[in-house]
Amino acid sequence: MKSKNDLLNDFDHAGEYCYNIIKELFPLCRSITGNELRNTLLYFQSILPEMIIESVPSGYSALDWTVPFEWNIQEAYIEDAENNRVVDFKLNNLHVVGYSIPVDEWLSLEELQSHLHSLPAQPNAIPYVTSYYKENWGFCIAQEQRDKLDSENYHCVIKSELAPGELNYGELLIPGETDREILLSTYVCHPSMANNELSGPAVACALALWIKSLKKRKYSYRIVFIPETIGSLVYLSKNIDVMKEKVVSGFVLTCVGDDRCYSYLPSRAGNTLADRVALKALGEIDPDFIRYTWLDRGSDERQYCAPGIDLPVALVMRSKFYEYPEYHTSLDNLDFVSPDGLQGGFNALRRCISILEANVVPRIEILGEPQLGKRGLYPSFSTRDTFDVVKCMMGAISYCDGTMDLLAISEKIGRSFQEVSDALRPLIEAKIITVTEPFPPSY
Amino acid sequence: MKSKNDLLNDFDHAGEYCYNIIKELFPLCRSITGNELRNTLLYFQSILPEMIIESVPSGYSALDWTVPFEWNIQEAYIEDAENNRVVDFKLNNLHVVGYSIPVDEWLSLEELQSHLHSLPAQPNAIPYVTSYYKENWGFCIAQEQRDKLDSENYHCVIKSELAPGELNYGELLIPGETDREILLSTYVCHPSMANNELSGPAVACALALWIKSLKKRKYSYRIVFIPETIGSLVYLSKNIDVMKEKVVSGFVLTCVGDDRCYSYLPSRAGNTLADRVALKALGEIDPDFIRYTWLDRGSDERQYCAPGIDLPVALVMRSKFYEYPEYHTSLDNLDFVSPDGLQGGFNALRRCISILEANVVPRIEILGEPQLGKRGLYPSFSTRDTFDVVKCMMGAISYCDGTMDLLAISEKIGRSFQEVSDALRPLIEAKIITVTEPFPPSY
Amino acid sequence: MKSKNDLLNDFDHAGEYCYNIIKELFPLCRSITGNELRNTLLYFQSILPEMIIESVPSGYSALDWTVPFEWNIQEAYIEDAENNRVVDFKLNNLHVVGYSIPVDEWLSLEELQSHLHSLPAQPNAIPYVTSYYKENWGFCIAQEQRDKLDSENYHCVIKSELAPGELNYGELLIPGETDREILLSTYVCHPSMANNELSGPAVACALALWIKSLKKRKYSYRIVFIPETIGSLVYLSKNIDVMKEKVVSGFVLTCVGDDRCYSYLPSRAGNTLADRVALKALGEIDPDFIRYTWLDRGSDERQYCAPGIDLPVALVMRSKFYEYPEYHTSLDNLDFVSPDGLQGGFNALRRCISILEANVVPRIEILGEPQLGKRGLYPSFSTRDTFDVVKCMMGAISYCDGTMDLLAISEKIGRSFQEVSDALRPLIEAKIITVTEPFPPSY
Repeated sequence: MKSKNDLLNDFDHAGEYCYNIIKELFPLCRSITGNELRNTLLYFQSILPEMIIESVPSGYSALDWTVPFEWNIQEAYIEDAENNRVVDFKLNNLHVVGYSIPVDEWLSLEELQSHLHSLPAQPNAIPYVTSYYKENWGFCIAQEQRDKLDSENYHCVIKSELAPGELNYGELLIPGETDREILLSTYVCHPSMANNELSGPAVACALALWIKSLKKRKYSYRIVFIPETIGSLVYLSKNIDVMKEKVVSGFVLTCVGDDRCYSYLPSRAGNTLADRVALKALGEIDPDFIRYTWLDRGSDERQYCAPGIDLPVALVMRSKFYEYPEYHTSLDNLDFVSPDGLQGGFNALRRCISILEANVVPRIEILGEPQLGKRGLYPSFSTRDTFDVVKCMMGAISYCDGTMDLLAISEKIGRSFQEVSDALRPLIEAKIITVTEPFPPSY
Repeated sequence: MKSKNDLLNDFDHAGEYCYNIIKELFPLCRSITGNELRNTLLYFQSILPEMIIESVPSGYSALDWTVPFEWNIQEAYIEDAENNRVVDFKLNNLHVVGYSIPVDEWLSLEELQSHLHSLPAQPNAIPYVTSYYKENWGFCIAQEQRDKLDSENYHCVIKSELAPGELNYGELLIPGETDREILLSTYVCHPSMANNELSGPAVACALALWIKSLKKRKYSYRIVFIPETIGSLVYLSKNIDVMKEKVVSGFVLTCVGDDRCYSYLPSRAGNTLADRVALKALGEIDPDFIRYTWLDRGSDERQYCAPGIDLPVALVMRSKFYEYPEYHTSLDNLDFVSPDGLQGGFNALRRCISILEANVVPRIEILGEPQLGKRGLYPSFSTRDTFDVVKCMMGAISYCDGTMDLLAISEKIGRSFQEVSDALRPLIEAKIITVTEPFPPSY
Repeated sequence: MKSKNDLLNDFDHAGEYCYNIIKELFPLCRSITGNELRNTLLYFQSILPEMIIESVPSGYSALDWTVPFEWNIQEAYIEDAENNRVVDFKLNNLHVVGYSIPVDEWLSLEELQSHLHSLPAQPNAIPYVTSYYKENWGFCIAQEQRDKLDSENYHCVIKSELAPGELNYGELLIPGETDREILLSTYVCHPSMANNELSGPAVACALALWIKSLKKRKYSYRIVFIPETIGSLVYLSKNIDVMKEKVVSGFVLTCVGDDRCYSYLPSRAGNTLADRVALKALGEIDPDFIRYTWLDRGSDERQYCAPGIDLPVALVMRSKFYEYPEYHTSLDNLDFVSPDGLQGGFNALRRCISILEANVVPRIEILGEPQLGKRGLYPSFSTRDTFDVVKCMMGAISYCDGTMDLLAISEKIGRSFQEVSDALRPLIEAKIITVTEPFPPSY
């Protein structure tokens, strides 16, 4: 599967589609500002035409932060006295420290060392290093490459610009039946890395297409493609009031592309609707998913859940940032993520959204157990399968007291959300059970 | 012990009395309606003259349900071409599917098979099968008997009536000092089975005699002998308002006759006064009692605890319905229950009621520890025994802050309800501690 | 270290100072009244001149209790027919049952036995026995001494007085910036025993000196030296209203002198600020500290936490009363306690008080994470150490939502109180975080 049309016919192969996006965007040297960030946003806009690309100028005050100068880079290399390029940005854009200022000087090997970054414990990996808020320059190289440097002097060249410009982000609002919103936030500021981070935007893009394809949406969707940290601060500075009013659940989409495990990181409050949904969805997909704590946070949830902002935002991931050896190195590449891994990430988030969309608070309108037989709602054949279905149905009905949503009921009776939803559907259709929306999310 | 008078002198031998009731009522072919149900109620009325036998007509609307026709049966058998009765209702009334319509036809063995019920895994057991709400007929036989059927044709005869009539139940109201009520509900619709279900009505009868024998009763008692499910629905349809107002705790009495274990099944809410009492009483009798969950429910608690009804009704049982191999078969017979088993069931419920009757909210009227010595409330000899009594007393006093009932205090200090009750009695008599009633049961 | 001046320069050697106090006061035959109690109070007054020594007369009504006659003793011995003193109060004041009435009679050995107390299981220990509220007399001796008694008759002499007099206690109020109080209560009624109980008054005295030495005190301190039980009842009878209004946390100081373990005994409520502080402080000092329950109580917490009094008073101890073999015997002597043991007790209580003094409710005044770099609040060098500090700081900041005190935050992020306090201090100084006082202690 390659095309958007293929995807729209079969979201069970979204992983391939996402993988192709990652392949195409992998070479771009994104940062928190600059041309390649804009090109990345334009790429997604070409798939999602409703997406608006917004900008704020350098110097813009975003809550406690200030948007830095825009950074662009043309070329960067280190060459020895014989003009051999021993390091070249063209070969891997991780070779340059992000936001490096321009440089063109000859340094002794010793002087050079203080501008080099490598990982002794991972000698073949190029690390990812940035210096957004302090002027600096440097090169990142594999330790084994560094160990080979033996010339007396090196010529360091970085042709970059750090100048007033703008910071960009993409915003896609997909309306639903109500103005209550689900927030999906992903970040587009990382250069050539795959799980962290092209998996997030790719899966967010596929999810957006899936959400648009839904015939019925209870929730409106706010999907944002932003630079990490400064982008969420900018976005919050402009939208915090409406978000606090409308967002019922949110997810930061990051690290959803490999196939090693599933992970959950809670909101700061820990018990929001987003958390409950994430725990249920992951528990259904892989009971061995890893449960991190708020102390392990590290992405835009830091802003969304900060005191006074307090949005109900949780994370559903595959291998979590910081926690896998390839993290923030050149080893987080196209081999680390896979169509299967991405499909798993897509499925986990899709399940969260599906649960949210289907979640209602059911209340039975009959006192005592309903007589289902007379309504044809009781299986006419009694087999082990129907026994199980009936047990689920009667268990679910017994909790339809108007104080629990389907999610709570499914947790209470130890069934999947889908089983409970399916079991109660006929009774809802028969108007034996009435439903109300689970927002404001008070449980 | 056989007679009611013997029982009234010694409730510690109630098990024998109950066993004799079961023996006498065992042969009757009870169902949810009919003559034998009425005869069973008349039998209990002869012991408990204050019991009123109520009736509702077929077609009566009981919440979501409708009372079916009344069913009576005279004879039923299967005979072969040589007039040998290979199955005969006279030998065991489980042989006929409950509510079987009349039949008198010759069937081929193959045709007959679809009307036979047996249990391959329990080849010597006759299963118990009913079809109250869908017209049907059938025979239940032991698998080993079924395997012997080898004639070509069989003559199936069921002389039954399914016609407008009535549904009956017994209601016994025993007044107490207050109009707050304890509900005891048991069911009388099962034919020849002993633990499930003649043990419930037999123990309910003995408990009613014991309750009547109490010199002082704080609570009024509502004791009902009903057909299961449809009976509780009928009873609720007539009494729900008064029950919601008055019932402080209730118990469904079922499966209280064998001697294998003790079991507890919670109310839907799980933390009502009935639950707290049941847990305490069972914990004192047998710390290894089995704790089921609301998902394991199966009797009239399904109605009493349904959303909107929400009565505080729990179950204290011996071997729970569904959970023992003999359940709903001819093996649940007079050998499965025993006087000792029934005595255990009686004792467990009696302990629940005793705790409820004695439970009060104590409040100490003195600031700081009371000086018990000056009131002669401190043991004058100090031994290991008195040390333990004093420790219990001082522990209990320390929690007499007016927010906990005796039950909560006994849980808090890890003592039996009786120990705590005994320890505080002298202080209550000395008016150092005042008490209030624990209803409305807010903790 | 011996002198008060030494102590004021180095509270990290308070153990030695306390040990010297214990040595000096050890020989005095204290009881709940009498000259030696007064002398003990005068001793502490000489160190803490602001301490006021109060008195109430015999017969004074203290809540439910009455202050007994004052007891003084000059001499007591048992001699045989040859005038050999086989037991002599001069050698150990535990030899006489506390509050023994005067006696001067010849008894047969058999008659004498009923007036003797010994411990068969600890043959070399003299037990500590009293009879405050019932007139009695007796001698306490080692079992091995008792076994040697073989004369026919013994002359028992106790030269004591039990007569109207007074009960005394010491009260020290150290004012702070607010009128919210920390209560420290210790008891001074035990004769020659060291852990239980001279360690409490000695450590209370050192703590009082340390508290006075603080340049800044948020809380006022109410430090009382009282006879156990009757003293706290007397003190409460006079001060309960002001204490209920002002006391934010309190500790009974007892058994803080040996070096075997640390122990915690909760308030009756179990979750007061005093409990939270005690658990945190002990957890930081020794994660293996022993957690007793309210059922193990035994000192003045019985009064302070009684229903209706309900002060937030917990106990931080070394080896708890009742629980060590030497308890209430002559083996609880100067060998059982040690400067190190006392220093540990002092440190634990000092840590509790330090936490209380530093505990505030922080609220961050910035939405989203603050940009610490621009304020110079972010370490400029990134090392493993600074990483840990930053992680602690960012974790703490993330909980500065105005609903948690520093104590709660430190529990939440699994750091010591000091680490959290240190991490947030620069932000408080920079006014990024504002603080409010954690009282009334509502969490």
